[in-house]
Amino acid sequence: MYAVRVKPDRDFNLKSIPPRQNGNLEEDNGRDLYESLAVQLGELGDLMSAAATHSLLVVVQGMDTAGKDGSIRDVFSRVNPSHCRVASFKIPSATEVAHDFLWRVHQQTPERGEIVVFNRSHYEDVLVVRVRKLAPKHIWSARYDQINQFEQYLANNNTIIVKFFLHISKDEQEERLLAREADPLKSWKLSVEDWTNREYWSDYKRAYSDAVRKCSTKAAPWYIVPADRKWFRNLAMTEALVETLTPYAQHWRDFLDDQSKERLAELTVARAAGTIPALPDSTSRE
Amino acid sequence: MYAVRVKPDRDFNLKSIPPRQNGNLEEDNGRDLYESLAVQLGELGDLMSAAATHSLLVVVQGMDTAGKDGSIRDVFSRVNPSHCRVASFKIPSATEVAHDFLWRVHQQTPERGEIVVFNRSHYEDVLVVRVRKLAPKHIWSARYDQINQFEQYLANNNTIIVKFFLHISKDEQEERLLAREADPLKSWKLSVEDWTNREYWSDYKRAYSDAVRKCSTKAAPWYIVPADRKWFRNLAMTEALVETLTPYAQHWRDFLDDQSKERLAELTVARAAGTIPALPDSTSRE
Repeated sequence: MYAVRVKPDRDFNLKSIPPRQNGNLEEDNGRDLYESLAVQLGELGDLMSAAATHSLLVVVQGMDTAGKDGSIRDVFSRVNPSHCRVASFKIPSATEVAHDFLWRVHQQTPERGEIVVFNRSHYEDVLVVRVRKLAPKHIWSARYDQINQFEQYLANNNTIIVKFFLHISKDEQEERLLAREADPLKSWKLSVEDWTNREYWSDYKRAYSDAVRKCSTKAAPWYIVPADRKWFRNLAMTEALVETLTPYAQHWRDFLDDQSKERLAELTVARAAGTIPALPDSTSRE
Repeated sequence: MYAVRVKPDRDFNLKSIPPRQNGNLEEDNGRDLYESLAVQLGELGDLMSAAATHSLLVVVQGMDTAGKDGSIRDVFSRVNPSHCRVASFKIPSATEVAHDFLWRVHQQTPERGEIVVFNRSHYEDVLVVRVRKLAPKHIWSARYDQINQFEQYLANNNTIIVKFFLHISKDEQEERLLAREADPLKSWKLSVEDWTNREYWSDYKRAYSDAVRKCSTKAAPWYIVPADRKWFRNLAMTEALVETLTPYAQHWRDFLDDQSKERLAELTVARAAGTIPALPDSTSRE
């Protein structure tokens, strides 16, 4: 697998994963592979949505410019928008802050059959909150366990959970900020903060490492995505999602098959009773 | 234009629009045209989302099997899911019924910069409610004005509104129901009701005609989409959306341009003060 799935309770070091990795693939091959996986993801999404026994929650986190927006656009490009929704968590409102930190998040979890992508998430409450000291340590340090319990509860209620950390290098971030500044179609979203935030780079990295180590569980694993190359990032994320959903596909097909049989039996009964018109000769199933 | 925009306060007859129309296009040409318009729609969506001065509300209505789900999947296939959301209105919950009929709808209207597609909508309250006599006439007949006022209010608050009626023939519906029954991937969603509902076909058509005539306004026009041919339906809807958004594009570009200038000026000030690092020589703008 191209993304690195973090094993529960293992010592883990972000430094061991090079952000510029390409999985020994040529870019062209990587793009083709991604395209075919994106189509598969769309089909698995259709199947999940039809069966509506499970839902999928995808968490996307990463430093500024790591590609959260871009990867969501690309990875879910072949998924039917009718059963896929993106929830973006920005600076919390006064009402949101007045509640526990999982309150606003829980309101956005997917219904059965739905895919919801979190662009940022409850993890900000152990990331920016920790790094910028928005809450004291005894508050944020209690949250890892609370997150694990919450995610386990969702999983027990048929939510399939996949969490991505988009891993870019500090040099790549600088290049992307400069490229944004030079591009009139992108420079409107720049801010001085984008640069001053870089002073906290290693603090953020430490906070990410802890979050990933403490909260990568069997029920809700973290995947580290080497993200300096956008095409490889898209490939790695799409592959991880397809691999996660594939084991459920047969169950969903069987479920729909049973449902079809019931529906067709109802139609047969209604036809025999004359409630609905008979089948035309050419399509008769007799 | 391939869809028929219904003029306000005009006498209007659904019968004058043939559902099997193809706009004198070959299917191949029609598909190519749709593809390029879908890409344009994606770009216009990106621009609208970036500027975040306006939002887009798309209402999709039509008889069973008219293609509401399929058209939403196809027309919005190139729109970034981060700023596009589909809201499906099914049989209302007990809480929803306990409120006025626009209550649940208002909760789903788009935020600035967002596209929201209504799969069914508040129009059900003058369609199924009228045809199946779920409320007395004095209740549903008062709703046309209430809808017009609500939509006018949304438009006054920078919501761009486009409403589509997917227009299929009764014969095409029969073919689609039979095809569903023969397809094991689709038969799970059949019901006896799909057939018994056909008894109300002309009542529904009358109710649709009235809704379209009474509620096609300058602020929120109805478009009749000939929908027997799926490729033509997709083309007609995408074209209508592109034509609706295009007149705003320059305004959005100018808005972003101004914002870019402000941002770049802030960066220049911060650089002069030494708050953020100087530009590398190669990219310096001096």
